Amino acid sequence: MTMYDIIDKKRHGKALNKEEIEYFVHGYVDEKIPDYQMASLLMAICCNGMEMEELTNLTIAMANSGDKFDLSPVNGVTVDKHSTGGVGDKTTLIVGPIVASLGCKVAKMSGRGLGFTGGTIDKLESIEGYNVIIPENDFINQVNRIGIGLISSSGNLAPADKKIYALRDVTATVESIPLIASSIMSKKIASGSKCILLDVKMGSGAFMQDLENATQLAEKMVNIGKLANRNTMAIITNMDMPLGLKIGNNLEVQESIDVLKGKGPEDLTNLCVELASCMLMLCTNKNKEECISLVKKSIEDGTAYSKFRELVIAQGGNVNVIDNPELFKKSKYIIEVKANKTGYIYKMNTSSIGRISCILGAGRERKEDIIDYSAGIELLKKTGDFIKEGDIIAKLHTSNNKIMEEAEKLYLNSIEISNEEPEKKPMVYKIIK
Amino acid sequence: MTMYDIIDKKRHGKALNKEEIEYFVHGYVDEKIPDYQMASLLMAICCNGMEMEELTNLTIAMANSGDKFDLSPVNGVTVDKHSTGGVGDKTTLIVGPIVASLGCKVAKMSGRGLGFTGGTIDKLESIEGYNVIIPENDFINQVNRIGIGLISSSGNLAPADKKIYALRDVTATVESIPLIASSIMSKKIASGSKCILLDVKMGSGAFMQDLENATQLAEKMVNIGKLANRNTMAIITNMDMPLGLKIGNNLEVQESIDVLKGKGPEDLTNLCVELASCMLMLCTNKNKEECISLVKKSIEDGTAYSKFRELVIAQGGNVNVIDNPELFKKSKYIIEVKANKTGYIYKMNTSSIGRISCILGAGRERKEDIIDYSAGIELLKKTGDFIKEGDIIAKLHTSNNKIMEEAEKLYLNSIEISNEEPEKKPMVYKIIK
Repeated sequence: MTMYDIIDKKRHGKALNKEEIEYFVHGYVDEKIPDYQMASLLMAICCNGMEMEELTNLTIAMANSGDKFDLSPVNGVTVDKHSTGGVGDKTTLIVGPIVASLGCKVAKMSGRGLGFTGGTIDKLESIEGYNVIIPENDFINQVNRIGIGLISSSGNLAPADKKIYALRDVTATVESIPLIASSIMSKKIASGSKCILLDVKMGSGAFMQDLENATQLAEKMVNIGKLANRNTMAIITNMDMPLGLKIGNNLEVQESIDVLKGKGPEDLTNLCVELASCMLMLCTNKNKEECISLVKKSIEDGTAYSKFRELVIAQGGNVNVIDNPELFKKSKYIIEVKANKTGYIYKMNTSSIGRISCILGAGRERKEDIIDYSAGIELLKKTGDFIKEGDIIAKLHTSNNKIMEEAEKLYLNSIEISNEEPEKKPMVYKIIK
Repeated sequence: MTMYDIIDKKRHGKALNKEEIEYFVHGYVDEKIPDYQMASLLMAICCNGMEMEELTNLTIAMANSGDKFDLSPVNGVTVDKHSTGGVGDKTTLIVGPIVASLGCKVAKMSGRGLGFTGGTIDKLESIEGYNVIIPENDFINQVNRIGIGLISSSGNLAPADKKIYALRDVTATVESIPLIASSIMSKKIASGSKCILLDVKMGSGAFMQDLENATQLAEKMVNIGKLANRNTMAIITNMDMPLGLKIGNNLEVQESIDVLKGKGPEDLTNLCVELASCMLMLCTNKNKEECISLVKKSIEDGTAYSKFRELVIAQGGNVNVIDNPELFKKSKYIIEVKANKTGYIYKMNTSSIGRISCILGAGRERKEDIIDYSAGIELLKKTGDFIKEGDIIAKLHTSNNKIMEEAEKLYLNSIEISNEEPEKKPMVYKIIK
């Protein structure tokens, strides 16, 4: 077997077998296969696609390329959730405690933000004292004790994915449904949970722009999960505008607390109920209606919020700040963005709003950038709202006075105002089991 | 402009513009673009093809990447011929002198053999004293004086092609009609001749296996040539069996002399008349019939052979050997291969026969291998001939007694004998103007 023959086979649109896939995945991690051969193969995959069995073999080989998290010592059914990335997506902070309060085991590893999408780990670190790195044994014990642990991804989880992704990033092969599916699922499989819920974002703030592609990606990931013996489900959700009303790390934690206390914004609350219900369905034999009512109850009776407190305490966070969100660090400046026109907000360029949040200090353009946890955006008006010229439509939080004017201008440019009322789009487009 | 954007554009099947093509060709030669990005782009080209204008721009950028041979000081119309490679193809040695004797100017650079195809330069070097490297000025003077010069390719001719070809060779991107077309034509354009005849070989001893692909390649090359302001024509010819009856360096020179003297084998003679007529047509306004009759006359009246003698003398070769071919160096051993079956030769695996010639010592598997000029194969019987068990069908010439048995066995395996008479295929399939 040679890499040349493998590339040639894929180039001619044939499916690679398990041995061929393991050969190139392990060969690449071991630096026996040069970047230029891998780049050629990746482009052939982009152009010719992959069959389902082939794609599953690729995903499993990538999952097996490094450390795998062994969750067998956890008593109970473990569940993970993955979002393909959006703006204002703080759902992990909310649905984790909800389903843990209902008996599911959440032993979850999350990532940091990069570019216009935030990362759960950065949000958690905006809570004073919260420790995202815990020894494996302590982590398992915590999950067994309180039902939940949220930590940072291990460095050697699916190293093949890390190395392949870095190459895709410079060879124009990122945008490929099979390669995206195998990248996500290799990490989910290596992370060890039995149940996996995939939240595939679609719209102006997401990688996927249309239902056809989002469905394809969701179906492929669900199939991979099932073939890898995981209870997997996907949900395609709206990312045409930011989720909820707050973007930025401690702002999003504050909004999560609101939702857990039953007083969060409607869109975010509804999505969290939907996601948590699906996670509960994956872990139990309960039907959707039962799950929804259990989830709602856990919010109403305060058990979900209590679970969040327990999590923060277990991982060393200052629970006083959680109970009194006015204690969260505040940015030096708050810029009120006023509408320059009267009409309906017809469209929001969501990824552009995510980028503005970055500029304000909430995110990273490069891995080495330092985050300002208090920076971000409060949305006062969203798509569909009628606004008058001069109305405050958003508040920009920042401690960097050099970018204030630019950020305000960019924010106004990312909003389209029209006399026409936009069509109301659903929050959940599709569920794929 | 970034290489990423260029790859992405090609990946999505869009045509690259002139600036983009020049950017990556020159960037790659200058080592500013890494192999992995080039590999990714090449695979995208293999999968998505190239439009005609795009392909011409690529070819010209490659031709411009290094030295270009300036033939403007040559008085008269220069003509070049290129064969895509076959077994027993010694036509350059024959058609060069023919058309030079008829007033065309042949200032031709040729290559060495590699793998199963021989190279004109190796054949010329089998003539004692023949010098394949001549200073440019002397070469131009020789062409002006006697109408012909056959030398070795300059090291820095189309370096982009050299570097891209080396990468294609390890990334399964050799087999691509636009990339083959641009590779061949970039060198032809950089070589400077005004008229170009392309001999596209098709069959068991050629890269192209069917008329559809051969036609596509021929058409693309002709179009590139015309767009680059060269009089270009292509001819698709039969390579289902070796050309003529001799394979191997000095054996092929001997057979070339036979053809130039009007006593060569029929298939080779006919092809040379066809090729030389096409070259003459490209250089003049004469019609095909006139050209054929002039070519035949130049053989009959000895002017073509005289021109060959002049060439050998001009480049320092021992003309005594040309006039007395029995003086050519002979191999130590001659193995007579006898038919193991009675019937028609139904098929010859021509590339396999080319490889046997290599094993006998006539070619190189690797660039650094040394050639035995006397080694090769004499074919006594070819496809369509009826043979009886025990008949001598070929003579293998070698000085290496260790490979004699293996070579004989391989030769028998490369011949298919059947009771059925094979269909007679034409020598010339198609002419593309």
